[in-house]
Amino acid sequence: MNMKTIEWKDGELVLIDQRKLPDSLEYFRCRDYRDVIYAIKNMVVRGAPAIGVTAAFGVAMAELAGEDVEVAAEEIKASRPTAVNLFWAVDRVMKSESPLDEAITMYMEDMETNRAIGRHGAGLIEDGDTVLTHCNAGALACVDYGTALGVIRAAWDDGKRLTVICDETRPVGQGARLSVWEMQQEGIPVKLITDVAAGYLMQTGMIDKVIIGADRIAEGGVANKIGSLMVALAAKRFNVPFYVAAPMSTFDTENSIYDIEIEERDPAEVLYYGGCRIAPQDTEAINPAFDIVPSDLISGIITEKGILDPL
Amino acid sequence: MNMKTIEWKDGELVLIDQRKLPDSLEYFRCRDYRDVIYAIKNMVVRGAPAIGVTAAFGVAMAELAGEDVEVAAEEIKASRPTAVNLFWAVDRVMKSESPLDEAITMYMEDMETNRAIGRHGAGLIEDGDTVLTHCNAGALACVDYGTALGVIRAAWDDGKRLTVICDETRPVGQGARLSVWEMQQEGIPVKLITDVAAGYLMQTGMIDKVIIGADRIAEGGVANKIGSLMVALAAKRFNVPFYVAAPMSTFDTENSIYDIEIEERDPAEVLYYGGCRIAPQDTEAINPAFDIVPSDLISGIITEKGILDPL
Repeated sequence: MNMKTIEWKDGELVLIDQRKLPDSLEYFRCRDYRDVIYAIKNMVVRGAPAIGVTAAFGVAMAELAGEDVEVAAEEIKASRPTAVNLFWAVDRVMKSESPLDEAITMYMEDMETNRAIGRHGAGLIEDGDTVLTHCNAGALACVDYGTALGVIRAAWDDGKRLTVICDETRPVGQGARLSVWEMQQEGIPVKLITDVAAGYLMQTGMIDKVIIGADRIAEGGVANKIGSLMVALAAKRFNVPFYVAAPMSTFDTENSIYDIEIEERDPAEVLYYGGCRIAPQDTEAINPAFDIVPSDLISGIITEKGILDPL
Repeated sequence: MNMKTIEWKDGELVLIDQRKLPDSLEYFRCRDYRDVIYAIKNMVVRGAPAIGVTAAFGVAMAELAGEDVEVAAEEIKASRPTAVNLFWAVDRVMKSESPLDEAITMYMEDMETNRAIGRHGAGLIEDGDTVLTHCNAGALACVDYGTALGVIRAAWDDGKRLTVICDETRPVGQGARLSVWEMQQEGIPVKLITDVAAGYLMQTGMIDKVIIGADRIAEGGVANKIGSLMVALAAKRFNVPFYVAAPMSTFDTENSIYDIEIEERDPAEVLYYGGCRIAPQDTEAINPAFDIVPSDLISGIITEKGILDPL
């Protein structure tokens, strides 16, 4: 997949509109930082590294337009609460002399970082492995290549035969819509399951490894897409190695993982799927977007610096 | 809810067509045992106790029509492989002198059994509890009243205030479509979550008890709707009592739970939800319909005879 999730072009930030995948490949143009906030909030762009780079360009656009950069930075940081890369990226670009240059640097770094994560992680994958992933920590969650799916790409490029199992990742379906699509684009064998079939597949010995991404890594564990916890519990029970792949920018060394804010999203995400309503009218729903995988369930964290223990 | 999931009327078996709920309440008329097989296979009727009673009437209809009852019995038993109540019911009615009388007896017994399960289980529920259930072990899984939801009904009728959390139960959505609907009909407070949000709710202390049904209880554990295993693992991790509610007819004392056949259903159930396609064209999917909850994860099995240890 040579396309980029994010591109800076003629003073605009052009994003793959991930709400439209896999049915159509469309682009969303951010003309100012308010468009960037809209895109992050509404998951036009999602995935912690991609959110970080997008946010950095948002600050740059505010500066280029002569807007109040401090205000823009605060508004961008308020767009979503859980992925720490968002705060890291905005703070970093705010400290730089040229926000646009810094955003471009971060853009390039993200691509390098993901390839380094891939190289470190590929050694964990054996020829013939079946690897389960949750949500989308792929090219679409980054500038390109991906973190968890970057490890799979690197192993595949090394000539290892593998099968990827994507769980669908309700409510928004990033597994079914995005990870399956990415693997199909690469020609890597992929199969889809419902989220809760993951336990059965591990119970029956069909999964060799689990690799997921992360929205924040801190003392005590990893925050990632809702459902990561239940996958990790099943992996522990059935002795399946469970890896997290993420850049160092996902580490938050200031907080305990249990002190961070877990985003609650619109109940409509639960009540509809693919445009179809799936529950009676007037049903109340609860829709937390993330959960916490405690450190004792994690076999290792694959970063651009190597494979680290959880905090 | 005074309606019955199953009714014997003028020589026909009238079933609530559960594929149509909650959008519309329609009935499916079985005019011969082949209609009964169609209804079981296609989940017009589902839930282990309801499948058992339906199957019993299927044998009775074959006998009344002067068809080969042995052949009919074998064909009915081949309709779905996992719920043991199906085999139990067909064998029992085959041993009787009058299949129709026996089917009617089993129909009446199912209603009594569920109320006894409810009485035994209600004592486990405390005033103010929030109870999570998976799939639908409700009136719609039985002749009426339900097993897991029967316990909730009994506690509610005792005046206990409670909140029910239903997970949606992908792929077919029995939680979102059926359990939510049943609770709404009763006026019992109910909220919907995605399947994998269950772990987070337990992690954050929002669930006091879990109660599910069963398709088969045998040495080593309980087979139930896919996803039950992951809910049980989360309950164990976060010290939430995890109960199974089921009639004695769900016990299989002849097999280990790991030796039974786990039904694989049509991948289309994974690829579509509520009529909407949720993954790219040409996606392969794996669709196991059940998994195994190992006995060590189960706090107790609520039966019409009392609360038993798992096998």
